[in-house]
Amino acid sequence: MSEHDASELREESPSEAPRLPHGQGAFVIPLGTSSAIPTLTRGLAATLLARRDGQVFLFDGGEGTQLRFLQSGLSYGKLRRIFVTHLHLDHYGGLFGLVARICMGNTPQEIDLYGPQGIEGFFYQHIGNSLRNAPIVMRFHELDSDFAGVILDEEEFTVSTAPLSHVIPSRGYRYEEKPRPGVFDGAKADALGIPFGPERGKLLRGEAIQLPDGRAVEPQDVVGPERPGAIFAYCTDTRRCKGAVHLARGAHLLQHEATYDGSLGALAKKRGHSTIDHAAQVAAQAGAHTLLAFHFSTRYDERAIREMVKKARAIHPRIVIARDLKPVPILPRPEVGDTVAASAEAGPDLESGV
Amino acid sequence: MSEHDASELREESPSEAPRLPHGQGAFVIPLGTSSAIPTLTRGLAATLLARRDGQVFLFDGGEGTQLRFLQSGLSYGKLRRIFVTHLHLDHYGGLFGLVARICMGNTPQEIDLYGPQGIEGFFYQHIGNSLRNAPIVMRFHELDSDFAGVILDEEEFTVSTAPLSHVIPSRGYRYEEKPRPGVFDGAKADALGIPFGPERGKLLRGEAIQLPDGRAVEPQDVVGPERPGAIFAYCTDTRRCKGAVHLARGAHLLQHEATYDGSLGALAKKRGHSTIDHAAQVAAQAGAHTLLAFHFSTRYDERAIREMVKKARAIHPRIVIARDLKPVPILPRPEVGDTVAASAEAGPDLESGV
Repeated sequence: MSEHDASELREESPSEAPRLPHGQGAFVIPLGTSSAIPTLTRGLAATLLARRDGQVFLFDGGEGTQLRFLQSGLSYGKLRRIFVTHLHLDHYGGLFGLVARICMGNTPQEIDLYGPQGIEGFFYQHIGNSLRNAPIVMRFHELDSDFAGVILDEEEFTVSTAPLSHVIPSRGYRYEEKPRPGVFDGAKADALGIPFGPERGKLLRGEAIQLPDGRAVEPQDVVGPERPGAIFAYCTDTRRCKGAVHLARGAHLLQHEATYDGSLGALAKKRGHSTIDHAAQVAAQAGAHTLLAFHFSTRYDERAIREMVKKARAIHPRIVIARDLKPVPILPRPEVGDTVAASAEAGPDLESGV
Repeated sequence: MSEHDASELREESPSEAPRLPHGQGAFVIPLGTSSAIPTLTRGLAATLLARRDGQVFLFDGGEGTQLRFLQSGLSYGKLRRIFVTHLHLDHYGGLFGLVARICMGNTPQEIDLYGPQGIEGFFYQHIGNSLRNAPIVMRFHELDSDFAGVILDEEEFTVSTAPLSHVIPSRGYRYEEKPRPGVFDGAKADALGIPFGPERGKLLRGEAIQLPDGRAVEPQDVVGPERPGAIFAYCTDTRRCKGAVHLARGAHLLQHEATYDGSLGALAKKRGHSTIDHAAQVAAQAGAHTLLAFHFSTRYDERAIREMVKKARAIHPRIVIARDLKPVPILPRPEVGDTVAASAEAGPDLESGV
């Protein structure tokens, strides 16, 4: 692990990198969509979130994450935050290799990791020298297993977390962008005779102005409606539970595990997992727009997955089957919030987290 | 990691599994042939050895081993022994996932692991529940960093080990099959009038017999020469060193790291690695037949690897470039031993191990 200088690294261009929906807002790329056993086409749990500004967040990182990341077409150098759900190997086993690889790149980079108690120790045990010798600042934020709340409140977004219900402590995450001001309509402003300069800035900031001829102009006369931010929730491994509904409330995209088909509810509950029907119920109850189902047991081939998802659309109509390396946009839809109030408190009995 | 029963497992057939040279004696399949950073075509260090009887041994197991193993066409269920060279993540990071996956198969299986101090603790830390709850018997044999000698002496083969020279303790391994009796020539025996029955058995076991008509028959009259067993040595990560020459003596196949091209000897030495020229020198000095070069720095593309190997053939003519999933037979060649005596003590100054 010691043969590389920054100058030596030559990244191969993936021959079949996915087409990325850059410039259309945030999107996710599932890197691994199988449950505990990888198949030839579905790797272990890991999902990249690419922000509008290019920053990349990673949710979980099972074995193989660094290779899938390379294949994704996104850059390791943009990775800024990692969120880990729980300490089962198939959800964190690829993080050490990924971070060691970034350290070998030798370019200064800050990475904040949020996850369960104990994960920092694992990192130092396996790649301590890499962490100590590279110009990478890696900060660990270990969360108590019953912690729920906001862990990041930045200018443009928040991230919050809540316990889920699995066989060991597990937690989900919610990424929520703050709304952005509406679009300034220059043509309308010209027609109203608003001069270039500070007046236009005031309107953009939401303040009314008075023109020299005495006419009042309200912001909404020239500025479009506030643009909602994207909301993404990531819930795995978990039974159908309150924590997941909480995190997914009004989300535009909910990535939720669906280890089993709808007929295996009792088995799912016993093993701390969800069926596709459970995931659809969480999505419906939370008023989430689109369910991105993943973490499928290897007992299902692709046809079986399509069939179990088709049936679950009776519970929640918009379900997308996650595929490794297939980007999924998080489309902010103003109408999503409307359905939340009505559905959020209804629905089947739920497991509490932890 | 808890959703699987033995009955549920459905192994996908790799669509492009390599053609395996079954029935032709032992062979190896490199699963990963890059150095510390995987590329799209070369994974992290791991090599399978398939024995004549179908048992599979694994040398190292970097991240991605379980997936490459699945792709190899060999069966997890045949894995019997694991040999680990050193505690750098790129050489062991995939072992936990591999063994956890075998545990999920839930079929009784015995696995012996030989490797550095501390590796057992890692296993229990990351997949302790899998190990405790599955019917897998996993035995750990932790070796002191300066240990050299025989670690396995079975009816058909031995495995020995010796320290190498790296930046942390590292060791190589030598797998050596015991010779098998020669082939019984039935046609010759018929011509000599040797009756079916115990006489033929005696000849096969190396005993002379006397026929009823008084003629004596020596074993060599009807039994071919003893068939030499395959000898394979695995040496990584290491500088050019005495331990490697010792392990590779008279080997039919020496898999040796070749991180750098021949011009970077000083850098290789500093970082505890070998150039392709170093590897070729070890092969020549040990009288090994074929050098299987691997563990190439990502600074080299395939063309550069071919060129550096081509140059090194001036030092040792038979060098094969290892490729992920490409099987390499270990062909026992009776003539190999002849060259050993002459060359074994010559050659450049070597690093001592550890």
